[in-house]
Amino acid sequence: ERDKYESNDVAGVVTGLAWTQVGGDILFIESILSKGKGTLNITGNLGKVMKESATIALEYIKSNAESFGINPDIFGNYNVHIHVPEGATPKDGPSAGVTMLTSLISLFTQRKVKKNLAMTGEITLRGKVLPVGGIKEKILAAKRARITEIILCVENERDIKEIKAEYLSGLTFHYVNDMDEVIKLALTDEKVKNAKTL
Amino acid sequence: ERDKYESNDVAGVVTGLAWTQVGGDILFIESILSKGKGTLNITGNLGKVMKESATIALEYIKSNAESFGINPDIFGNYNVHIHVPEGATPKDGPSAGVTMLTSLISLFTQRKVKKNLAMTGEITLRGKVLPVGGIKEKILAAKRARITEIILCVENERDIKEIKAEYLSGLTFHYVNDMDEVIKLALTDEKVKNAKTL
Amino acid sequence: ERDKYESNDVAGVVTGLAWTQVGGDILFIESILSKGKGTLNITGNLGKVMKESATIALEYIKSNAESFGINPDIFGNYNVHIHVPEGATPKDGPSAGVTMLTSLISLFTQRKVKKNLAMTGEITLRGKVLPVGGIKEKILAAKRARITEIILCVENERDIKEIKAEYLSGLTFHYVNDMDEVIKLALTDEKVKNAKTL
Amino acid sequence: ERDKYESNDVAGVVTGLAWTQVGGDILFIESILSKGKGTLNITGNLGKVMKESATIALEYIKSNAESFGINPDIFGNYNVHIHVPEGATPKDGPSAGVTMLTSLISLFTQRKVKKNLAMTGEITLRGKVLPVGGIKEKILAAKRARITEIILCVENERDIKEIKAEYLSGLTFHYVNDMDEVIKLALTDEKVKNAKTL
Amino acid sequence: ERDKYESNDVAGVVTGLAWTQVGGDILFIESILSKGKGTLNITGNLGKVMKESATIALEYIKSNAESFGINPDIFGNYNVHIHVPEGATPKDGPSAGVTMLTSLISLFTQRKVKKNLAMTGEITLRGKVLPVGGIKEKILAAKRARITEIILCVENERDIKEIKAEYLSGLTFHYVNDMDEVIKLALTDEKVKNAKTL
Amino acid sequence: ERDKYESNDVAGVVTGLAWTQVGGDILFIESILSKGKGTLNITGNLGKVMKESATIALEYIKSNAESFGINPDIFGNYNVHIHVPEGATPKDGPSAGVTMLTSLISLFTQRKVKKNLAMTGEITLRGKVLPVGGIKEKILAAKRARITEIILCVENERDIKEIKAEYLSGLTFHYVNDMDEVIKLALTDEKVKNAKTL
Ligand SMILES: [Ca+2]
Ligand SMILES: [Ca+2]
Ligand SMILES: [Ca+2]
Ligand SMILES: [Ca+2]
Ligand SMILES: [Ca+2]
Ligand SMILES: [Ca+2]
Ligand SMILES: [Ca+2]
Ligand SMILES: [Ca+2]
Ligand SMILES: [Ca+2]
Ligand SMILES: [Ca+2]
Ligand SMILES: [Ca+2]
Ligand SMILES: [Ca+2]
Repeated sequence: ERDKYESNDVAGVVTGLAWTQVGGDILFIESILSKGKGTLNITGNLGKVMKESATIALEYIKSNAESFGINPDIFGNYNVHIHVPEGATPKDGPSAGVTMLTSLISLFTQRKVKKNLAMTGEITLRGKVLPVGGIKEKILAAKRARITEIILCVENERDIKEIKAEYLSGLTFHYVNDMDEVIKLALTDEKVKNAKTL
Repeated sequence: ERDKYESNDVAGVVTGLAWTQVGGDILFIESILSKGKGTLNITGNLGKVMKESATIALEYIKSNAESFGINPDIFGNYNVHIHVPEGATPKDGPSAGVTMLTSLISLFTQRKVKKNLAMTGEITLRGKVLPVGGIKEKILAAKRARITEIILCVENERDIKEIKAEYLSGLTFHYVNDMDEVIKLALTDEKVKNAKTL
Repeated sequence: ERDKYESNDVAGVVTGLAWTQVGGDILFIESILSKGKGTLNITGNLGKVMKESATIALEYIKSNAESFGINPDIFGNYNVHIHVPEGATPKDGPSAGVTMLTSLISLFTQRKVKKNLAMTGEITLRGKVLPVGGIKEKILAAKRARITEIILCVENERDIKEIKAEYLSGLTFHYVNDMDEVIKLALTDEKVKNAKTL
Repeated sequence: ERDKYESNDVAGVVTGLAWTQVGGDILFIESILSKGKGTLNITGNLGKVMKESATIALEYIKSNAESFGINPDIFGNYNVHIHVPEGATPKDGPSAGVTMLTSLISLFTQRKVKKNLAMTGEITLRGKVLPVGGIKEKILAAKRARITEIILCVENERDIKEIKAEYLSGLTFHYVNDMDEVIKLALTDEKVKNAKTL
Repeated sequence: ERDKYESNDVAGVVTGLAWTQVGGDILFIESILSKGKGTLNITGNLGKVMKESATIALEYIKSNAESFGINPDIFGNYNVHIHVPEGATPKDGPSAGVTMLTSLISLFTQRKVKKNLAMTGEITLRGKVLPVGGIKEKILAAKRARITEIILCVENERDIKEIKAEYLSGLTFHYVNDMDEVIKLALTDEKVKNAKTL
Repeated sequence: ERDKYESNDVAGVVTGLAWTQVGGDILFIESILSKGKGTLNITGNLGKVMKESATIALEYIKSNAESFGINPDIFGNYNVHIHVPEGATPKDGPSAGVTMLTSLISLFTQRKVKKNLAMTGEITLRGKVLPVGGIKEKILAAKRARITEIILCVENERDIKEIKAEYLSGLTFHYVNDMDEVIKLALTDEKVKNAKTL
């Protein structure tokens, strides 16, 4: 039995798409802040490449804080913890990059994530989004989980075109080149309920 | 021979349910504070995922200290040590998450844990409780150990329904969605005897 | 040829009982203090679980310093080094817990250890003593080494009852539930000769 | 399908040439700065030797800052992150040295990298460029990616001479002995758009 | 071809006896001080147990500085480096303990080591010397190297008694119980030439 | 094709002799300084023993700074980076010790290294040079690389005597006992061009 989309009530919780040996699945990226000196904690039974995605997302945000409307003093005053639930399952690969980025921007701005949205894509330090594998399996899992909108790299559009139309009904695709587009699509202007003042 | 439930006299000691190759068992999570600068020690022959549960529990509490009635200054003035007894047995997996969370809240608030209570469930950074495996074996072990109340994730209710009624007599089940519910069910308002002033 | 009991002239030296592939043996736990900032050194070719016992013993003492009559300022002004001699032999397991605890209390209080005494038992953060294995082999080794008093967990009493009476002559057993009882039994009120002023 | 050259709009992004089991390819070195105390982050699923190249490049620049027109105070006020995209692919070897050096000089000076340029070569602490392997495969990949200018070590000129002329049409080669020559060839005097003031 | 005894001109250089797969040999322990904050460097291709001997020796000296006539302020103002030459040969085991202890006391007091002396024995934190193996092979190597005096643990006397008298001619044995006896036997009251003022 | 000797224009660059599975070769040790707090970086795909040689060389210099005419304040104000080029080749063993020592003395004094000189030998903390293996192969490689002077340990003289005279023509050998002799032979009194003021 597969996971289902959950609500968007909490800052830092974003839905990603994963591709495992037993097929596609959705996964959640969660992040929280606690008072501290800027330590980054990463948990969830993650391999080296997936941990690197978390570092890339955080360092990219630090380097471009102003363009995201984030006060850079935050980074020195809080510890960040990024977690990917279901610790019994080992996870790896770069495709959670966009999801981690979105999670952290939501966390630092306390902005609400768009409803029923999922995403998959590698991120890079220059702000680009790169294509990833397992698109067909991921899309099927997204439908099962009641996702209605999906963000992908433009280079993954051809993978969508190879999928039968009947599997795509009810899904809207957003193809992006850059991480800025992901954030514009994924985050609303609304703050989450009980938004923290950072 | 299996372990038996013990008393609830000491802050930070909470009963969990474990599932090993030789069947179900109960386990104890113990935690203590000592003057320090916020270091987290984790012992008990634990694998990576179980150590991550301890980090998740502590960071979640740090991030939500006020909602638990905890003065956040405590975190910088004390070291925390979480231990799982019976060091000869290797232990791993995410299912001690709720038990570790309850142990730490009891420790930081010096509140007494409810009597004859055990629990099992994964925790996440957004405050949810996730279902875990081995429910049947864990329930049998709980009965043998004289446990009378058990906290489980709502998604584990179906596992209970598959167990014959005769094995469940004398057991009360509490199904939860969120970590807040765990704490309301597990901790009394009473302080432990000789409660520390933090 | 097996080890023999040695004197109790030095603070921090306590006799334990070990169980190895070649049978039972006694072992010594030694600890010393040097001026420093609280670092814990652990040597003696020890495995992960035995090193964890040293951490558990030290953290338990830090958390309960007053109840042992220890000025907690000591912990920040001295480094602690715990060693288990005979470095050519790898050692592991939790059963040296009570011995390490007694060694550290003797060290911090400079109190003399009782003569001709040995002990074995796992310790936990809530102050309990847990039973351990290899009791028969350990008792035989204790006799050979001229030990006359032995501290064990109450749950190990049944192991003693299974040993023929002739092997037990000349041995007095103390069965304990808690670490406090160990300390009352193991340490005299007398300071060691040339006791350090801490 | 192989990668294509991309624009030179962003400081710190430089095109390298790689040689893998499945043939030649281009790769990108990306680097960014964030406020900090001089930490070096290296990501991209890199092996030990490729990580060492990043350290060599950064330490060489620190040791020769003035000759590159870089204010040495920068090093203590910013963290540097070097990334090599496509995290699913393990990468190793010393041949990205010149590319990493160019990336960092572009980053610290905010100068634009020359268009349609790629490079490959090991670097050393005395400022020399050393020859590398896989030249033929790398050149073919460069052509496919629309590269027009290539920087190589002078000792790799003989490898170019062994390649049929038809494969080289449209490519200009720059053979270098030293790292200074690389920087003169690779970086323009123009700042990137939205150059940071360091 | 085997090593030969060398002079005693330099503080911190002491001759030990080693037992390897190819027979006995002598080895040298060397130690130096440099201005610093108390770091301990250990080199010479040493295994875990031999590195532990170095830590035990240094911590024992720190804990008993006054009894050795050493100003304890030295430990915080200098780094210590202990090396065992012939880096191509892996070395391990506890038997260099007495040699490392003597090397460090010579270093901290700048006292000259006795001439033509070698030693072997494990050390412990309570100041005892423990017996070690390979005595026959070590004695033969000592003779070949022109050693005339040897320090051993009293418990190794029986190993000497099993060696034919003809192999022992020209050798004087000193059997010790404690580390204090080692130092009295091994160090002269004379300072080395060009003794450092610490 | 083998490496060739290069110039002596840069401080800290010294030619060593290496012995690999495919025969002898020359190698270069390079070192640089950058403003910092005394960190030692070691790169070049080196094994544990070769990294230890770098530590031994640096610590020996720190301990004997005055005798080399080096202001000891340098060590706390600069980071040192030692690199051995050709990162694709794993390297190990103690025989680069003299080369690393010479590199660092040249670096700290900014003195020029003698022309056409190569060396091989292990170093120790008491200032001695020890013999190393592979002498014949190393000498042949030195000739091919146009080396004319070679520094060896006196104990390696017998290895030279076993080589046919025709292979030795044009080579001058310097046999040394101590590290001081290496420095006197290897470094000129002349500063390098553009010497740094430290
Ligand atoms: Ca799932
Ligand atoms: Ca689920
Ligand atoms: Ca159990
Ligand atoms: Ca038990
Ligand atoms: Ca023994
Ligand atoms: Ca013994
Ligand atoms: Ca590619
Ligand atoms: Ca691509
Ligand atoms: Ca030897
Ligand atoms: Ca030798
Ligand atoms: Ca070479
Ligand atoms: Ca070369």
